[in-house]
Formats: sequence, structure tokens, C-alpha cells
Amino acid sequence: MKICFIGATGHTRFVLDGIKGDKDVHIEGIAPGSKEEKIDSFIKKLNDKGYNVKAFDNYKDMLDEIKPDIAVVASYFGYHGRVVLDCIDRHCNVFVEKPVATDMKELDDIRNAYEKSDISLAAMMGIRYTPHFFTAWKAVQDGAVGKVRLMNAQKSYRLGNREEFYKSRKTYGGTIPWVGIHAIDWLYWFSGEKFKSVYATHSKSYNNNHGDLEISALCHFTFENEVMGSVNIDYLRPATAPTHDDDRIRIAGTEGVIEVREGKVYLINNAAQGIQELPLQSGGEIFTEFMAQVRGNGKCMVTAEDSFYVTEAALRARQSADEERVIKFE
Amino acid sequence: MKICFIGATGHTRFVLDGIKGDKDVHIEGIAPGSKEEKIDSFIKKLNDKGYNVKAFDNYKDMLDEIKPDIAVVASYFGYHGRVVLDCIDRHCNVFVEKPVATDMKELDDIRNAYEKSDISLAAMMGIRYTPHFFTAWKAVQDGAVGKVRLMNAQKSYRLGNREEFYKSRKTYGGTIPWVGIHAIDWLYWFSGEKFKSVYATHSKSYNNNHGDLEISALCHFTFENEVMGSVNIDYLRPATAPTHDDDRIRIAGTEGVIEVREGKVYLINNAAQGIQELPLQSGGEIFTEFMAQVRGNGKCMVTAEDSFYVTEAALRARQSADEERVIKFE
Repeated sequence: MKICFIGATGHTRFVLDGIKGDKDVHIEGIAPGSKEEKIDSFIKKLNDKGYNVKAFDNYKDMLDEIKPDIAVVASYFGYHGRVVLDCIDRHCNVFVEKPVATDMKELDDIRNAYEKSDISLAAMMGIRYTPHFFTAWKAVQDGAVGKVRLMNAQKSYRLGNREEFYKSRKTYGGTIPWVGIHAIDWLYWFSGEKFKSVYATHSKSYNNNHGDLEISALCHFTFENEVMGSVNIDYLRPATAPTHDDDRIRIAGTEGVIEVREGKVYLINNAAQGIQELPLQSGGEIFTEFMAQVRGNGKCMVTAEDSFYVTEAALRARQSADEERVIKFE
Repeated sequence: MKICFIGATGHTRFVLDGIKGDKDVHIEGIAPGSKEEKIDSFIKKLNDKGYNVKAFDNYKDMLDEIKPDIAVVASYFGYHGRVVLDCIDRHCNVFVEKPVATDMKELDDIRNAYEKSDISLAAMMGIRYTPHFFTAWKAVQDGAVGKVRLMNAQKSYRLGNREEFYKSRKTYGGTIPWVGIHAIDWLYWFSGEKFKSVYATHSKSYNNNHGDLEISALCHFTFENEVMGSVNIDYLRPATAPTHDDDRIRIAGTEGVIEVREGKVYLINNAAQGIQELPLQSGGEIFTEFMAQVRGNGKCMVTAEDSFYVTEAALRARQSADEERVIKFE
């Protein structure tokens, strides 16, 4: 199995974690996703780990020369869509940093190209595989809270000093599509319901000189069957906080309430008195499962359809916030 | 100081807690707020506590005969507006279960009548006075999180088997105005910002034969200065939960994040490493402060203006959910 990296900006660690111990995997090439992107330190990291990687200036040359089984797309977020299209054109399987695209037209083009192809594609919605989210999701699938009715999800990050490309909508894509998309994915994944509408707002105020970057955002989704869910997103987590991020979800259903908070899972339902802390189950590794799918002996929890649909939901939420109106899903 | 009760349905305990040890207070009369309301068990409770209370069939007769200093309005929520108007007409100070009214026209009439009067009025937004909410609010006023940017508030209740009047919009008013209003009040109280718009949804599905009662609801408020806040409301808390309610708020600001959860207050900001649990301060008793205001030597934290404004916000949120559209505040 030959792997190439296009860009070194996103969550490349999913790949390095997922290939551990797999002797049939070879990282063969790396190229930036755009001219501005610096990938030298990641190349050094790969070399230090003993991978013999050839560096290219142009990712298309790399794809044509190496013909990788999987292209890992992790460049500036605003360029993913174009790069993914180039990969599908070359019949290359794609593991791509979310969102899949930052523009609805580009997303539609990718969907169409994907449907005509026989490739595998997954976006890096890797938080599904963390033990806390996976354990909570399994419990909900097993009926722990009955029918899902109301969901509240949170993404909170430290801001720090971000690279220049975060400061432009063109290269960054927006906080709802880049950060919020995880939580939007959880709402869809936990409830299993289709999106009906979204109302969202976001704000760049007090973003500490980060240009277009929205530092706070709030989304209100409705789903089929009168299920509803909110997503709150911020970069307001202080540097003194115990962790970089504070991912949470709370799901209230007809039989109970489950929560993910600080890496733990809490459940109250009629099966037991009081708050139960659930023992964590391993969710595995997203890239290991994606490779198994490419090899024809497995299935990644994040399907191509999920990747497109959740990207669409994030883009519609961003549109709602930009245009200050409710957007209905078609 | 003479006090009369009109109805015995709402949070009458605020009054009983607030008058403890005050020898100048006399509970002189009680009447139902409407013909259907049963008040016998509350009369028995008052008698058992040694109050010598005269029971009336009609609250207007009671107001005219006793001429109380304060009428405590705590009847079926849908009837508060009418009763409050009757009290203001009689120059009687009013301590009223929230919402002040369940209809915008009635609320406008009350505002107009109040402005022409010299009475004091406060809605039972008594959660402001609980040690956890009061401590968090004080910290925010003292700058603990800098400028407030993003707020998420929660009201979650056990449903149980509710009286008939909860099952009709006419008598109940709706879950956003009755339950959600507390959390709507917190957003306004903590941020100090004016409401700009609201988008809300609510659902009666799976309400266990409770008629019109909405069992889940979600509100998305925008405020001046691009501040935003959500309120999630449900009656989905299982009977096995450790408490009846699960009130929460999380406030992210430019300098930190503060949270109220399970009666505790957690702060992260640049003043200290990690999560600080704040020592709780007593907030006092809402009715004690309201009596002090009526006596001319104090001020209730819940002003008449706050009571009206937050009721208005709750009614606009309900309208948004009923009409499935964003409502702007004028």
C-alpha cells in the first residue's frame, strides 16, 4: 500500500497512528497543497521516523509518478476541494482533512466525480474513534437514552497565535466548517436523522488580530422527526486551561441523558439510580479502518457519503451565519 | 406588611423562605387565580405554619377587602397577566410567578399600567439568588471572563405526571415561557446586553400524554455587540436522576470561561492555572429583597423592567418556534 501526503497542515497524526505496525504500508511521497505551504518540518519528521519519502514541488506530478493507493490531503483547508478533485480524477483513494470542500459548488463537483468513480474517501472526522465519543455513541445505538430528542455539542479551542492562512476566509474556510464540523458530525452520527434546517451566527470580534477567523459561533440545527441540536464553537479557551480543547456532547432522549465531557461518558437512565460513568471502549484508529476499506476487508465509520453530507451541513451553517437567515436543506 | 396569595401553583416557597423571622409580615388572605385552581392543600400548609389566613373565592374581593401591600401571584401561568393587571389597577405591589404574561398584548398592557403606577413588581426569577448562579454572576461582573461573547444555558426537568393545566397552551403558556425563561433571564443578566433576535424550535413529540406541553426546545439568541447565546430546555431528565433539575450555564468571554453545573461554579482564566472551583457566596432571598424594596430601603435584583423584558424575550422565542422563523426585537 503506497501513501502520499498532499500538504502537512491538518491532522496527519491520524495517518502516522493508523499505520503503526503495518509493514505493508509505504509512505512514498509528499508535496505541498499549494505554493505557500511549508512542509519542511513534516518531511524532517517523516525522515526521522525512518520513512524514505520523496518530496515533490507539485502534487499532480507526485500522483502521476507514484500512483499512490491513498492520497492524504491535509493542506490549507480552502484548497482541499480542488486537490480532492485532482485525486479522484486520477482514481486515487482519498483521506482528507475536513471539511472536504469550503465551497458548495466544489463539493457538488466532488460528489459527482466520486459517484462516477470506484474510489474510497473519508474525511478526518477522527473524533468518532476516540474512546469517549465511541463509547457514548455505542451506548446510544444500544438504546441507552431511547429516542434522541435534543442534542448540544461543543467545540472549544485555545486560540494561541495561528499561521497566516487561518486569517483569510479563502485559505481557512471559516470556523464553522473547520472546527464546528466535528460537532455537526456528532449530531448527525448520534441521532441518525437527516438535517432539515440550520440557523447560525458567528463573530470575528475580539479575535486577537486573526483577520477573518471567527472566534465564536453558534448553530441551531433541526432534523427529521422534530429532533433538534445546537453546536457552540469558540477559540476562547484560555492558555491556562488543562487541555487544548474541550469537546462535549449532551444527548437527551426519551429514556435518559448521556454526556461526553472531559474525556468521560456520563449516563442517567431508568436502568440505574444516579449518574453512571461508563467504562470506555476502544474505538480503534480511523486510518487503520480506512486502509482496511481500501483493501476490501473493512469499512470506515466515516463514509464518503457522511463526509460529503456533514461538509454540506457545515457549509450551509456558514452560509446561514453569513446571510443571517435560516437555511433549509433540500 | 400585609401579604395575600393569588393562587398556590407557582413557587410560593420563595415567599415563605423570604419572610422567615420577619415579625412585621402578615399573610392575611388567599384566593385561587381561577375557578379551576385547587388551593386547599396550600391553605392547610399555611394554617399548619400558624398563619391566620382568610380564604376567598374571588381574588378581587380579597384585594378590595384586605388591601395587601404585596399580592403574590402564583396561579395557572396562562392567567398571570390578567391577575397582575387587576393588582396594578388596585395600586398593589406584585410578586409574580414567571412569565409575567403569556401573551404579548397583555404584557404591553401590563407595562403601560406599570409605568403609570408607582408600584413595585418582580417576577420569580429566583434562581438569580441561588449561591451558584449568584457567585458566577458576581465573578463575571468582576471581570473574571472579560467581555462575554458566547453563552449556553440549560434547563432540564423531570416530567413526572403533571396536572391538567400543564397540558393546555392556554393555561400553561408553553415550555419556553415557563421553564426556558429562567435561562433566557441568565443570558440577559450575565451579559448585560440587549436582545437583537431569536430563533427557536420546540417539540411536543414523546411528551407522555401531556397534550400541548413541549418536552424539548432550543433557542438561539443574538444580542448587541455580536454576543450570542443558546438555551436548551427539556423535560427528559429521568426519574432516577439525582435531582429534579439540571440547571447550567457556560459563559465564554475574552479572558476566560465560567460554568455553573451541579450547583458548583468552575472558572478557567488567565489568573490561575487549571480549573478553579469558586467558593459559593450567599445571594440572599429574592422575596426578602423585594419586601425591602417595597419598604423603600432596598432593591430587588429582578427589576420590573427585567421581568417585562425577559418575559418579552421568552414570548418572542415561543413565537419563533411556533412560526418557524427568526424574530427580531424592535
